[in-house]
Amino acid sequence: MTDLLIRNLRPMGAPATDLLIRGGRIAEIASGITAPGIATEDAGGAIATPGLVEAHTHLDKTVMGMGWYENAVGTDLRSMINNERRARRELGLDPARQSMRHALALVGNGTTHIRSHVDVDTDNGLSVLEGVLKTRDTLRGVVEIEIVAFPQSGLMIRPGTLELLDEAMAMGADLVGGLDPCGIDRDPKGHLDAIFALADKHGRGIDIHLHEPGDMGAFSLELILERTAALGMKGKVAVSHAFCLGMPDWNRVEVLLAELAEQDVAILTTGAPSREVPNLKRVRGAGLRMGAGCDGVLDTWNPWNRPDMLDRARIVAQKNNLRADADLALALDLVTTGGAAVMGVMDHRLAVGNPADLALLPGRTLAEAVAMGGPVQLTVKGGRVTGRGGKPVMEAP
Amino acid sequence: MTDLLIRNLRPMGAPATDLLIRGGRIAEIASGITAPGIATEDAGGAIATPGLVEAHTHLDKTVMGMGWYENAVGTDLRSMINNERRARRELGLDPARQSMRHALALVGNGTTHIRSHVDVDTDNGLSVLEGVLKTRDTLRGVVEIEIVAFPQSGLMIRPGTLELLDEAMAMGADLVGGLDPCGIDRDPKGHLDAIFALADKHGRGIDIHLHEPGDMGAFSLELILERTAALGMKGKVAVSHAFCLGMPDWNRVEVLLAELAEQDVAILTTGAPSREVPNLKRVRGAGLRMGAGCDGVLDTWNPWNRPDMLDRARIVAQKNNLRADADLALALDLVTTGGAAVMGVMDHRLAVGNPADLALLPGRTLAEAVAMGGPVQLTVKGGRVTGRGGKPVMEAP
Repeated sequence: MTDLLIRNLRPMGAPATDLLIRGGRIAEIASGITAPGIATEDAGGAIATPGLVEAHTHLDKTVMGMGWYENAVGTDLRSMINNERRARRELGLDPARQSMRHALALVGNGTTHIRSHVDVDTDNGLSVLEGVLKTRDTLRGVVEIEIVAFPQSGLMIRPGTLELLDEAMAMGADLVGGLDPCGIDRDPKGHLDAIFALADKHGRGIDIHLHEPGDMGAFSLELILERTAALGMKGKVAVSHAFCLGMPDWNRVEVLLAELAEQDVAILTTGAPSREVPNLKRVRGAGLRMGAGCDGVLDTWNPWNRPDMLDRARIVAQKNNLRADADLALALDLVTTGGAAVMGVMDHRLAVGNPADLALLPGRTLAEAVAMGGPVQLTVKGGRVTGRGGKPVMEAP
Repeated sequence: MTDLLIRNLRPMGAPATDLLIRGGRIAEIASGITAPGIATEDAGGAIATPGLVEAHTHLDKTVMGMGWYENAVGTDLRSMINNERRARRELGLDPARQSMRHALALVGNGTTHIRSHVDVDTDNGLSVLEGVLKTRDTLRGVVEIEIVAFPQSGLMIRPGTLELLDEAMAMGADLVGGLDPCGIDRDPKGHLDAIFALADKHGRGIDIHLHEPGDMGAFSLELILERTAALGMKGKVAVSHAFCLGMPDWNRVEVLLAELAEQDVAILTTGAPSREVPNLKRVRGAGLRMGAGCDGVLDTWNPWNRPDMLDRARIVAQKNNLRADADLALALDLVTTGGAAVMGVMDHRLAVGNPADLALLPGRTLAEAVAMGGPVQLTVKGGRVTGRGGKPVMEAP
């Protein structure tokens, strides 16, 4: 069912109109469209936005639908990493089942695109990836899932990981992941040379977790920029978190932003309230592509994140002190068109000819719809209704 | 109806038991209580906590239930203050009606105690206070409301305000408010001398908004401490926001915390994600009373805040990087027992003899109940059911 007529919706808060979908694409936006025999939804005046984009998460980590995970872990990165690698087995975390639960919850909340990092390590091998690949296949046509093969436990400090990442790419991962070349992997040159070479070999992009703050993070960014330029990978690299771009030294940050713009390196943020984070307006102002993500949801790391990009828009907006209606629109853009651009989807807008990936939200104005945060009335992916009333249409396992 | 039997509840996540309320107080906590003829609720295994405490809000500011407020205001404090003073009239913001809506929404979300600042200025005079006083009276027995008469537009910079504050105290406000003695009022000595004298005259406490960051805020804190000591007001002063306590110089902060502890000055936080904020564990570790609040909700300042102390616990916890179960319990304590202590309510715990002010929350463990964030199953104030399923029992205007 990729033909659909949606009546009485308000695209981006504009006056009510109808929207016709044919062959999974937006065919017409006009009042009083007639299309006999086509499945029809009445939006009841709801606001239509492009589908929400979860551009930084970990579908393989959630304990959703299982027992409450009693967290007694320290808050330093290494404790959380090592704890999770053990807990994954002890809890019997089934990556296929858990990623289905997580992805479908996102779909219910208006999501049409997901970029997920997936752990690859010498303890769990490629089993986690296999599970998430299964979910990606099962959900084809429901939600687009992009997979980053990700050395969560380190690369240089855990020999054998690079070979696994190589296999992961051959198995169908979409991008090569990286992680704190200094702070975790203790060998920035080694780490970055390895993942750039791997991406080059497979002709794929890169998405690097960079939690390193201040000048250490800036140093790693410079090394990333050098390799992006040297390998001609302009536009194919993303940096997740990039806390260093939130450092107080704005002179330093401005130079970094200009260099990142030159190599079209994209930034992904979670708006982490307890950390310094990239400033949304400055990053966008520098011309960078930028998206957002909820990060891991209900996992061994953190109990607070929800599979909900409107909730994340609120967190990022509060962190960036966005209050005006125009700024709320910017926050919405971040979790729709912005995130899509990071995933290479450049036509993620409500316009004739574009894929019919959209969400219907309650609210009188666009700003109110963003601030209310749902529940999402309808999720539509390629003209197919995939979510209704905040719940996915497909049942989760 | 101040007698009530609640069956099958789990106090603070403990095994299921019954709780008997007589005359508005907790009379017994035990399994299999029999109390013929008494109204009975079945908690269905829900977790019971003390009632939630909203310890820093502005009941007079919300546009809840009205049109969407289109925000095109700058984010600096003075722009927001001046804009609101005008908007209050232009919007026809009825303080009695709006404060009822706001307070009852809080009640539905488990709240039994509220401290609200109320604007007193030379444009609106005492009309705003009159409205909130009416709400306080109407809601007696439903939720306890403490009112801070608050010079939102400044005191020394707007002659006539001090006289209005004096009248406000005579009319029944509970505490004297203050606001950024340097940053807004431009005369820290004048401002603080005035409000301390007023509090002294009326024999009331003080709650000062202190947004001033870094050393400017620390200077104001020192002036507050000097006057607290000089007037023998130990234990009667609270500082809201206190962003300066979040400054990176921990040596300086430690000294301030010790001095605040010596004068038993309480701290109230909103966990403002975009600002530096007092660190929960350090403030508590120094022995200070500390509570939290949602600040203004859906007003001309900000579209993000919700009348929901579990939502606020999440925001404060994320800002403080609290993740472990034990730390989630601390976040809950902040929005229950902690906030109550700031309001001078020292018996806000689930124990025999204490007032029967409590909330029933969904969740398997206490930590999960905090992380889930509701909906609150039942709010009970002095043995009276005031909220059910996240909604107040009394209808809002």
